[in-house]
Amino acid sequence: MADQTIKINLSESKKQKPQSDQLGFGKIFTDHMFMMDYIEGKGWHDPRIVPFQPLSLDPAAIIFHYGQTVFEGLKAYVTKAGEVHLFRPEKNMQRLNRSSDRLCMPQLDEEFALEALKQLIIIDKDWIPSAPGTSLYIRPFIIATEPYLGVTASKHYQFLIILSPVGSYYKEGIHPVKILVENEYVRAVTGGTGTAKTAGNYAASLKAQEVAEEKGYSQVLWLDGIEKKYIEEVGSMNVFFKINGEIVTPALNGSILEGVTRNSIIQLLKHWNLPVVERKISMDEIYQAYKNGQLEEAFGTGTAAIISPIGEFIWHGEELVINNGKTGELSKKLYDTLTGIQYGTEPDPFGWVVKVQ
Amino acid sequence: MADQTIKINLSESKKQKPQSDQLGFGKIFTDHMFMMDYIEGKGWHDPRIVPFQPLSLDPAAIIFHYGQTVFEGLKAYVTKAGEVHLFRPEKNMQRLNRSSDRLCMPQLDEEFALEALKQLIIIDKDWIPSAPGTSLYIRPFIIATEPYLGVTASKHYQFLIILSPVGSYYKEGIHPVKILVENEYVRAVTGGTGTAKTAGNYAASLKAQEVAEEKGYSQVLWLDGIEKKYIEEVGSMNVFFKINGEIVTPALNGSILEGVTRNSIIQLLKHWNLPVVERKISMDEIYQAYKNGQLEEAFGTGTAAIISPIGEFIWHGEELVINNGKTGELSKKLYDTLTGIQYGTEPDPFGWVVKVQ
Repeated sequence: MADQTIKINLSESKKQKPQSDQLGFGKIFTDHMFMMDYIEGKGWHDPRIVPFQPLSLDPAAIIFHYGQTVFEGLKAYVTKAGEVHLFRPEKNMQRLNRSSDRLCMPQLDEEFALEALKQLIIIDKDWIPSAPGTSLYIRPFIIATEPYLGVTASKHYQFLIILSPVGSYYKEGIHPVKILVENEYVRAVTGGTGTAKTAGNYAASLKAQEVAEEKGYSQVLWLDGIEKKYIEEVGSMNVFFKINGEIVTPALNGSILEGVTRNSIIQLLKHWNLPVVERKISMDEIYQAYKNGQLEEAFGTGTAAIISPIGEFIWHGEELVINNGKTGELSKKLYDTLTGIQYGTEPDPFGWVVKVQ
Repeated sequence: MADQTIKINLSESKKQKPQSDQLGFGKIFTDHMFMMDYIEGKGWHDPRIVPFQPLSLDPAAIIFHYGQTVFEGLKAYVTKAGEVHLFRPEKNMQRLNRSSDRLCMPQLDEEFALEALKQLIIIDKDWIPSAPGTSLYIRPFIIATEPYLGVTASKHYQFLIILSPVGSYYKEGIHPVKILVENEYVRAVTGGTGTAKTAGNYAASLKAQEVAEEKGYSQVLWLDGIEKKYIEEVGSMNVFFKINGEIVTPALNGSILEGVTRNSIIQLLKHWNLPVVERKISMDEIYQAYKNGQLEEAFGTGTAAIISPIGEFIWHGEELVINNGKTGELSKKLYDTLTGIQYGTEPDPFGWVVKVQ
């Protein structure tokens, strides 16, 4: 970084802030955004906070044609005392760099990127909603901007951070969803880009999601792309199962995204002295556990929902109802604990919270 | 389509056209571009030819985050008589719609899209270079423009066509390349997006390509993502082998892109009464054929190079030199015939050429 001074150009007019019950997810954006440019040989330069505005890009920019891009998602929470909390943001910046490496994109100075994020949040602090369950969703992303139709890594990039106040994921309290086990479409495969947070993985998931919704299910459970046998993720979340008292989640295998919430849950469970194991787990095994009455809970984990309890799987036409379709005790406890840490109402034994000051 | 009239807004200033030896590939663009918008419920609307200009997009546009986009690539050729030829452009428009279906994107009226393409070419006709081997590369593409961070299909799209005069792929005559057989990274897998011409496939390919180039190879040979055993594509091209007189190409299996050049070559070979077969083919088989002295030729096929002869494979450290590293007779004949049809110097028995008038 040649010059780490962030230039600030404040918006002359402020947009009207939405009511907390009108927030939804990812549709409303704050008054400002962070931008920084990269040119090969010069490096990252011109960091700036500017009014939220359209991007002007050449139609031949590589992002439009070859999808060279990575992103992150995290949240800022305001506590009852008015403090602003981030949750393990350094993990997101580390993952952004790992994703960039897979996509042949330049590395960011993680500390500087986090500092930029904090400065942006301070400027748009009034946008952080305070109603229970609401938060400020933070989307850092990097796009390849060089105008060139050759299939090669771009020499120009932009790093941006945009902010969106978001409503509670569970307006009517945490509740379980129905999941279709996906047997046709594949999200990612070993040797592909599944471990990177990059656009193509999400584009690839749209069709299966559309089919699942048409059939009345919320999400799909992704199986591995090789044998279509082993469990990978659920929707765009990691997935956990409680089987006969043990908590199991698929091991990171080269095609599963390494979720920050996933990692936090594993640490919490160990802290509680509960048996938790990361390993290969097949859908056959889940089915057997269900048949034996040992499939006690299942839930997805991610930044948006934190915990998304699974009430039912549909696999080859058969319905596997879990815990009578109700939120399990462990799912609820994990949700309450993690959100409690994030909103500052529970102790933070791991030092996960980073205060924005 | 509510209104199929294409509005035309000509550029007031014309850019300087490059020398034919300065063209390269995909770096220079003509004076105009085609644009058309889509909104769910309203459909495609406002088709227009405008001066080539930057796109203005919300930073939350789905294209930047979830890669919902498809594209095509084809060329316009100018003949000695000054006619402008397209090569089977209807195949590209059909494939664009198939790609869109996989990506949950709206269908285009193929005839209208082709008509728009022709009108744009006529306006920028003077940009088509006429030196041997040069052409006008045409890039139609659709991007998801709705500003929304939910992982779901966009409700807004833009369809664009941009044009780039390109130099001869073989400045010093057609010549063979060295190819690294890729054993780690995977381009696509059955159930994924490999059959669609969409950004994520190309983003996924960059790392392997980078590693191959560092080792001194031009491209990688992609193996299947499941067993890493069967041959899929070479770089971003389809691939053919001549083994003991028979021409073999991998069958379309759900992860290979259905190339227009690939299809044309199969038709040409049948027309010449040469044995050609589409089937599963393993790298082991290629190796055995090589050891037996029966691997006579190998070549990639695509719009950019037409035919790209392969002089050598590197597989697990062993060099498989094909035809003494020289361009094979069949490769040369296919190249001469196809480019001859495209430039109007050879008969066109299949009616592949579409004249732009």
